[in-house]
Amino acid sequence: MIVNPFWDACLRPGHGVPTGRITKVFISHLHGDHLFGLPGLLCTVSLNISPDVQQSLKCVDIYGPRGLRKFLRVTLGLTGSQLLFPYAVHELEPTSDQCPEEGQLSLEMTEESGPPHPQEQPGRTIPLDVSSDCYLLFQDSKFVVKAFRLFHRIPSFGFCIQEHDRPGRLKTERLKELGLKPGPLYGRLKAGESVVLESGRTLHPSEVLEADIPGRKVCVFGDCSSVLGEGAFRLCAGADVLVHEATLGDEHREKAVEHGHSTPEMAAAVARTCCAQRLVLYHFSQRYKPGSLQKEGDEDNVSELKNQAEQALQGRGVEVTLAEDFMTIPIPLKRQPTS
Amino acid sequence: MIVNPFWDACLRPGHGVPTGRITKVFISHLHGDHLFGLPGLLCTVSLNISPDVQQSLKCVDIYGPRGLRKFLRVTLGLTGSQLLFPYAVHELEPTSDQCPEEGQLSLEMTEESGPPHPQEQPGRTIPLDVSSDCYLLFQDSKFVVKAFRLFHRIPSFGFCIQEHDRPGRLKTERLKELGLKPGPLYGRLKAGESVVLESGRTLHPSEVLEADIPGRKVCVFGDCSSVLGEGAFRLCAGADVLVHEATLGDEHREKAVEHGHSTPEMAAAVARTCCAQRLVLYHFSQRYKPGSLQKEGDEDNVSELKNQAEQALQGRGVEVTLAEDFMTIPIPLKRQPTS
Ligand SMILES: [Zn+2]
Ligand SMILES: [Zn+2]
Ligand SMILES: [Zn+2]
Ligand SMILES: [Zn+2]
Repeated sequence: MIVNPFWDACLRPGHGVPTGRITKVFISHLHGDHLFGLPGLLCTVSLNISPDVQQSLKCVDIYGPRGLRKFLRVTLGLTGSQLLFPYAVHELEPTSDQCPEEGQLSLEMTEESGPPHPQEQPGRTIPLDVSSDCYLLFQDSKFVVKAFRLFHRIPSFGFCIQEHDRPGRLKTERLKELGLKPGPLYGRLKAGESVVLESGRTLHPSEVLEADIPGRKVCVFGDCSSVLGEGAFRLCAGADVLVHEATLGDEHREKAVEHGHSTPEMAAAVARTCCAQRLVLYHFSQRYKPGSLQKEGDEDNVSELKNQAEQALQGRGVEVTLAEDFMTIPIPLKRQPTS
Repeated sequence: MIVNPFWDACLRPGHGVPTGRITKVFISHLHGDHLFGLPGLLCTVSLNISPDVQQSLKCVDIYGPRGLRKFLRVTLGLTGSQLLFPYAVHELEPTSDQCPEEGQLSLEMTEESGPPHPQEQPGRTIPLDVSSDCYLLFQDSKFVVKAFRLFHRIPSFGFCIQEHDRPGRLKTERLKELGLKPGPLYGRLKAGESVVLESGRTLHPSEVLEADIPGRKVCVFGDCSSVLGEGAFRLCAGADVLVHEATLGDEHREKAVEHGHSTPEMAAAVARTCCAQRLVLYHFSQRYKPGSLQKEGDEDNVSELKNQAEQALQGRGVEVTLAEDFMTIPIPLKRQPTS
């Protein structure tokens, strides 16, 4: 599993472009370091499409705060950018407590004017679901993706990708004891159907299936200095991977918070509350050089940020990782513990 | 002299940012490969400004086709991008013959709506000056910069930076013969003033100055498959450096023209008509790898583009150069030939 659709890192100019087919894009907030690269990336993705598959191209769904639809319409429109695929922008409606007043966009600024892009499809406006304190973005047969509210200088969101639980393995020994041979019946049992045996006995799937394999969960937080509401913690509970910003070291906590950002200790506190398995830090201030350019003894060593998070998580068995652009983190399938 | 303000190359995501103070930006046309990087670059330039010079920051003048003002207002506005310096967008009004009809932007699309950016200053709308067939962008004590029309898929422009001629050297031998010693009088003569000598004789500067040193001229063409009107050729006559696109090799001329682009031979023809001293080619199709990544025997060798231009200019003494990002080409001062 590759956490592919989150382009926070690669949206910054200066980095390459994922070449695979991307059909879902999640934008945490509208700050330029996360957004200016988006129109160019859509164009590059389009350029890399071979002409013979054009017919069947699925709509690219783009999720992000209110204002994103206008941003794309204007940037793609004025530049005459032609896309080979349709796209739709689904806008999350922020709540007024997600940022200071000066960070809120007036309706006048976000209102779309002018003709839509020829490839623009109607998108949804997604309000906060108050009862669950989160935003349901989409679900398919594999995943459900929800968003939650963060506090930053402008409205910012985090995303939770939850894989559905899957049925456990068939207890093949037991099936053989019952005189059942591999075949279509196995598939029906695995899919959760009861079957009637030749003996007339009804076999329930729970009798021959091990416990469900829990789906994996990846949570990516946008820029923030704190989490808003209980929704985030409920959604992210037990995350396999929790990706959180750590712009400045703990010694600069006041400055970090003033700018709507976090320190490693703050990120660790979120990971702890969520009982995350693994914490991935990203969004380091320019003063911290990327790992590959790091020299021993550098004053602002990015590994110091890792140390600070590890210290704050001591003894919890949470692995801390410093993100690098295009890093891939494999998340092992969860296996039902053999009983 | 560094041709700095032309960001065609470095506007593409994936490249670094010039760190010096930039006060004039010229955008040839609104295609994404030349424009998507602009808001991010303005932000980066702003971030690199040390806080103690904030007070005195000059307005950054940005010149480009109609639609550019809205592009910047929306991208900087929606992203809440704060700039430490004021900026103004001066829009060139294209003529309807600069591109096919589908490449023209309706007034509805380019009309600015919503509040201006806090740092946005009023900008000019610059129509074509029909008598000279060009656009006067600005002049100061050193330079005059004009734009001219090109034909591309959308309205595109070229820019001519002309250094003013400067007075020739003082003929110091002659001045000594006249009994004049170095001092303020020398300065007044050099500045073009007549002076009255003690003998009562009026000395005209032309008597003691060598011929003017002609200013240098750099012309940068935006994407184009041809030049529109005579303005460009008149402006660019005798250019020291002429920068022209060469997207595809001569063997793909039909395809190049179909997409509004040029081949090396087409660029060479422009350089020949203008009697340019040096032709710099840029904007190579992705199929040609940049020089640094080039291996001998590569099928689509970028040096083949250079060969084609050189062949078309054979015997003319025009130096052909393949542009690389952040390449600096020194242009020697012109000296008055010693007679
Ligand atoms: Zn931010
Ligand atoms: Zn950020
Ligand atoms: Zn173009
Ligand atoms: Zn181009």
